Amino acid sequence: MRTIPIPEGSPFGLANLPYGVFSTSGTAPRVGVRVGDSVVDLARALGDDVFARPTLNAFMAQGYERWGEVRRRITELVSGGGVPEDAVFAVDAVTLHLPIEVADYVDFYASEHHASNLGRLFRPDAEPLMPNWKHLPVGYHGRAGTVVLSGTGIVRPRGQRKGEGAPTFGESRRLDIEAEMGFIVGAGSPLGTPIGCADFGRHVFGAVLVNDWSARDIQAWEYVPLGPFLGKSFATSISAWVVPLPALEHARVPTPPQDPEPLPYLREASPWGLDIDLAVEWNGEVVSRPPYREMYWSPAQMLAHMTVNGASARTGDLYASGTISGPGPDQRGAFIELTWGGKEPIKVNGRERTFLEDGDEVVISATAPGPDGVRIGFGDVRGRVLPARD
Amino acid sequence: MRTIPIPEGSPFGLANLPYGVFSTSGTAPRVGVRVGDSVVDLARALGDDVFARPTLNAFMAQGYERWGEVRRRITELVSGGGVPEDAVFAVDAVTLHLPIEVADYVDFYASEHHASNLGRLFRPDAEPLMPNWKHLPVGYHGRAGTVVLSGTGIVRPRGQRKGEGAPTFGESRRLDIEAEMGFIVGAGSPLGTPIGCADFGRHVFGAVLVNDWSARDIQAWEYVPLGPFLGKSFATSISAWVVPLPALEHARVPTPPQDPEPLPYLREASPWGLDIDLAVEWNGEVVSRPPYREMYWSPAQMLAHMTVNGASARTGDLYASGTISGPGPDQRGAFIELTWGGKEPIKVNGRERTFLEDGDEVVISATAPGPDGVRIGFGDVRGRVLPARD
Repeated sequence: MRTIPIPEGSPFGLANLPYGVFSTSGTAPRVGVRVGDSVVDLARALGDDVFARPTLNAFMAQGYERWGEVRRRITELVSGGGVPEDAVFAVDAVTLHLPIEVADYVDFYASEHHASNLGRLFRPDAEPLMPNWKHLPVGYHGRAGTVVLSGTGIVRPRGQRKGEGAPTFGESRRLDIEAEMGFIVGAGSPLGTPIGCADFGRHVFGAVLVNDWSARDIQAWEYVPLGPFLGKSFATSISAWVVPLPALEHARVPTPPQDPEPLPYLREASPWGLDIDLAVEWNGEVVSRPPYREMYWSPAQMLAHMTVNGASARTGDLYASGTISGPGPDQRGAFIELTWGGKEPIKVNGRERTFLEDGDEVVISATAPGPDGVRIGFGDVRGRVLPARD
Repeated sequence: MRTIPIPEGSPFGLANLPYGVFSTSGTAPRVGVRVGDSVVDLARALGDDVFARPTLNAFMAQGYERWGEVRRRITELVSGGGVPEDAVFAVDAVTLHLPIEVADYVDFYASEHHASNLGRLFRPDAEPLMPNWKHLPVGYHGRAGTVVLSGTGIVRPRGQRKGEGAPTFGESRRLDIEAEMGFIVGAGSPLGTPIGCADFGRHVFGAVLVNDWSARDIQAWEYVPLGPFLGKSFATSISAWVVPLPALEHARVPTPPQDPEPLPYLREASPWGLDIDLAVEWNGEVVSRPPYREMYWSPAQMLAHMTVNGASARTGDLYASGTISGPGPDQRGAFIELTWGGKEPIKVNGRERTFLEDGDEVVISATAPGPDGVRIGFGDVRGRVLPARD
């Protein structure tokens, strides 16, 4: 048995305990929990085979009470110095894997600042927000099969782009990011039974960082009338560590005022806005600090909306917030906004930049307030752009 | 060993051999093949455990050569009278199950007649077809988790509907169908590698009938700018029998002329339009006969488009054609078209009808030409509307 050192001020202390899937050389992927700079092998530490799986899904499917029980047991083991020696690995010495098997992937559009900016850019002659925007969390389904782990190389997509008269075909020239938070459904719901806002915490297991890579030229040509498709479906990256919902208790804040008042099924008795600070690094330089607390719609409202028509939710459903943009010009979570459609380049490492070039790396990180002044860390979601393939 | 009787003119003769998943009282769901009015238990008949699974996915993942080998083996067994006695069940005596585990679900919009009609109805002041429509097969991702087996009751969804000033909330008053064909990816493709039109037959395992239930009032309010969401995600029904692609060889026809010529990645050397005749019954009365041969984009073009940006395909991916509508008023595959937005009711069993009422049943069936004048049957996809739930 041993004690796990937790560096002073670590964003992965006892108040966090995020889950991931890891392997070591020659061993199968399995569930671990991150403590400081270590990973605890949960199948070994708790002697439960539900963690000897290549994703979190089997554990998540056990439900809310069980999540609480395991979190308490891990806290006891770690704080009591009772973790078996052979269950502890240095985080730098393990390989991380996609933590969940994604069931359905939905992407929302919950930032008023982002939706307004995109409206101005894509539809300059119309009102920036559509008439429905303040009445419901606008969202759409994305491609679950191309959700990839942080660190996966992002091959520049090819596709149709609007041309003079006829479209042209080729590699995207306006490759962009979207800095988002993602919420993972652990416990599903049967067909025909909506999940009310108040039941958010019983269904959602935790949160990850999301980079919803976007090819703006492909998107702008294809998206009418059925929405984004190939401009998004080539890759969506998520962070490796799933921060459990209870770790975000201290980050709970009200959403910004919602006016007009939402319909009853979208009203929340207790606030589930989240005070999460993101940072977007472009080739090592921070170019934006999107504040999650500015999001108009809360994660609980998104889930309530997604299921109000009776759609079932499943273990492994991932829904993302949409790009997080604050009111300030340096709080925008997509380059199309930061550079105003590419017309106002920003300086990155001394060079004027608009969209992504081959070889560029983007790293999105985030922390949230925890108890006693500590920060809860999400780690990061990163990706490097690889050249288009012939 | 026994011979399986095949009724004269059966749409489930040796030229078809569709796959499904069935169970008998007290037994686990497993893969079967339909022959006439019988189901052959493939795990027993072929002695291969890949068929002793609750979906077709494991078999489909074995790939194209294996699909051909199994089809030849079944043909030999059935035509040679070599099916074990205990492997044969009457189709009326078994319970059918969803035949595949759906990975991603994509819905296209490949009928020019449907897209034009919907454009006129949803955007009366604009050109009915968007500028992109004749350059690419427009499509979007739907909800894989709510794809259900034919026969599943369809609970009327609730949601937001456009109102005077503010939206109202309640049950959909414009519940509709969409008669479609669905194509199932059996063998996937890695991230970054598009599937060309010519490789369609190596990746697509077979076809099913699809009813993409649609709440038009919910859809009309929510769909800008990111596309349909809750107006579709409450349920999508598919037929129980997956017709293998080789059974459709005699149904291959060219698509209607495509003008302008598509970009090179969408050009087909050999035609993969399909001469499938559908029939839509509303409470037992045929109200429409949508002709699949009228579809502008072919299934091979849809798959090529869906992956041209490097998106991977997975075993179990389902993509549907979008509503099948022909040029004639009695060839439209959705009630919103048949009744022109509800303004021109049609007579069903002597009553004027527009959208679906509780208790209504819709049955969509289809056949295609096979060899020697036989017809290849898809069976049907059916569903009854149940009242909204409190």
